[in-house]
Amino acid sequence: MGTKKTVSVLGLGRMGGALARALVDKGYEVTVWNRSEDKPTPPNTTRVSTPEEAFKSDVVITCLSTYEAQQPLLTNDIKTLVNLTSGTPEQARNTAQWAESNGVEYVDGVIMAVPQQIGTPQARILFSGNENHYVLDAFGEPVHVGEDAGLAALYDLALLGLMWAAFGGYLQAVALMGSAGIAPERFTPMAVSWLNEMTTLLPEMGEETQSRQYETEVSALDINVAGLRMLTEAGREQGLDTTLPQALHDLFERAQRNGHGAHSIASVIEEIRK
Amino acid sequence: MGTKKTVSVLGLGRMGGALARALVDKGYEVTVWNRSEDKPTPPNTTRVSTPEEAFKSDVVITCLSTYEAQQPLLTNDIKTLVNLTSGTPEQARNTAQWAESNGVEYVDGVIMAVPQQIGTPQARILFSGNENHYVLDAFGEPVHVGEDAGLAALYDLALLGLMWAAFGGYLQAVALMGSAGIAPERFTPMAVSWLNEMTTLLPEMGEETQSRQYETEVSALDINVAGLRMLTEAGREQGLDTTLPQALHDLFERAQRNGHGAHSIASVIEEIRK
Repeated sequence: MGTKKTVSVLGLGRMGGALARALVDKGYEVTVWNRSEDKPTPPNTTRVSTPEEAFKSDVVITCLSTYEAQQPLLTNDIKTLVNLTSGTPEQARNTAQWAESNGVEYVDGVIMAVPQQIGTPQARILFSGNENHYVLDAFGEPVHVGEDAGLAALYDLALLGLMWAAFGGYLQAVALMGSAGIAPERFTPMAVSWLNEMTTLLPEMGEETQSRQYETEVSALDINVAGLRMLTEAGREQGLDTTLPQALHDLFERAQRNGHGAHSIASVIEEIRK
Repeated sequence: MGTKKTVSVLGLGRMGGALARALVDKGYEVTVWNRSEDKPTPPNTTRVSTPEEAFKSDVVITCLSTYEAQQPLLTNDIKTLVNLTSGTPEQARNTAQWAESNGVEYVDGVIMAVPQQIGTPQARILFSGNENHYVLDAFGEPVHVGEDAGLAALYDLALLGLMWAAFGGYLQAVALMGSAGIAPERFTPMAVSWLNEMTTLLPEMGEETQSRQYETEVSALDINVAGLRMLTEAGREQGLDTTLPQALHDLFERAQRNGHGAHSIASVIEEIRK
């Protein structure tokens, strides 16, 4: 063994492949394994045909499609497990518990980046539980988000949820504009600058959800519920699917009915938390 | 009459009041009217008690709560109508038609700003139909979005829809993080930088919706549907309302079932359009 730890990567999907390549670039001795043989072997890595062979490395990184695929592979032959398989906070906590009772060092991480960003400072890696980030700095900027092993997975879901909502809202908007013959390249620059502006309002909105003071001089929920009704109607008139605007309308309207009509949009959280 | 046109503002809600103040600041002679007397009179304006008195001005601006409130007020005594009441594209087109048959000059506009921004370059005013923006430059930056009088209202609904989705996604995320004791001020800076980063992906997503080429090297819909399922489950486990993540899951999953599992998120538009 040289000065650097040896590392294994289990799972050679797009992300696993990118992780293995980044480790090689940083000078680690890298062993890789994948269930099926169809995935390419990243250059300068040693491919093994069983997980057990991969467990000989100092650090084992898992980046599998699901916990269901990962769970049966884990044994207490693993010295240190860096779990990058996506799952719920509960699944991460259970794996942390398994690791503790089996004498396996453990850290749970999530990658807030696309494979192309791995190995650059743009890749933010959130991790929780153990404060030792092991080899995570080979992939980007590791950020410890807390002692609870489930926290990284929770941040992951929350941030991805924000992304899915914004992307869904954008696609709905593009479809609506398209119904009047406005092409995405004409609408999108306006959508980007508008969304960037709206994003600056999030810190104040966050404070309101904490203080639960929803008085507003800007825009009352009443007006926004009326707007969501118009958006849903306009979509329906154009023959569009209205699952998303209808859901937002229903959620906002429930908050309105529960006494928040004159309050800010932030008051909708009272309906989510219920 | 001086060198400047005289202007009336109908509706003295937060936005109507801000419009009247901006006109006074720019040196216009301003007349104001509001249905009820409870709204304050903006300084240096003349308050009148009937819409007819307000119609004597060269330009009449309406900024009422709904078209239902506005419709009965309009008469062909109006010389030029600048319609800033929020509504559907259809309502704007109908009002444009009414104006044309009654010899009333007409422009339809929407204000993509909060009242506090009125009169600053940050306030973007979209208008459509007539290319003459009349006094709209007193409020911010007027942008003509097309000949069709309904287009400004369509942009308004589309951009607000994007905002409602992003705000809803943010509040859902804050509620989820709160269930693990993470305060909004700890989560929000990460949410803001993440959303800003994700916003940079919209132009490419827009191009995909146009070319309908959804091949991806980044993130397949399959993974995102699995993630949305975990997000919905995690919310349910924490006793949160899951209207929004469930709707996103259902929409994305329908696209997956219709053959887009290996495609990018942009392919979800195929499910919205049909």
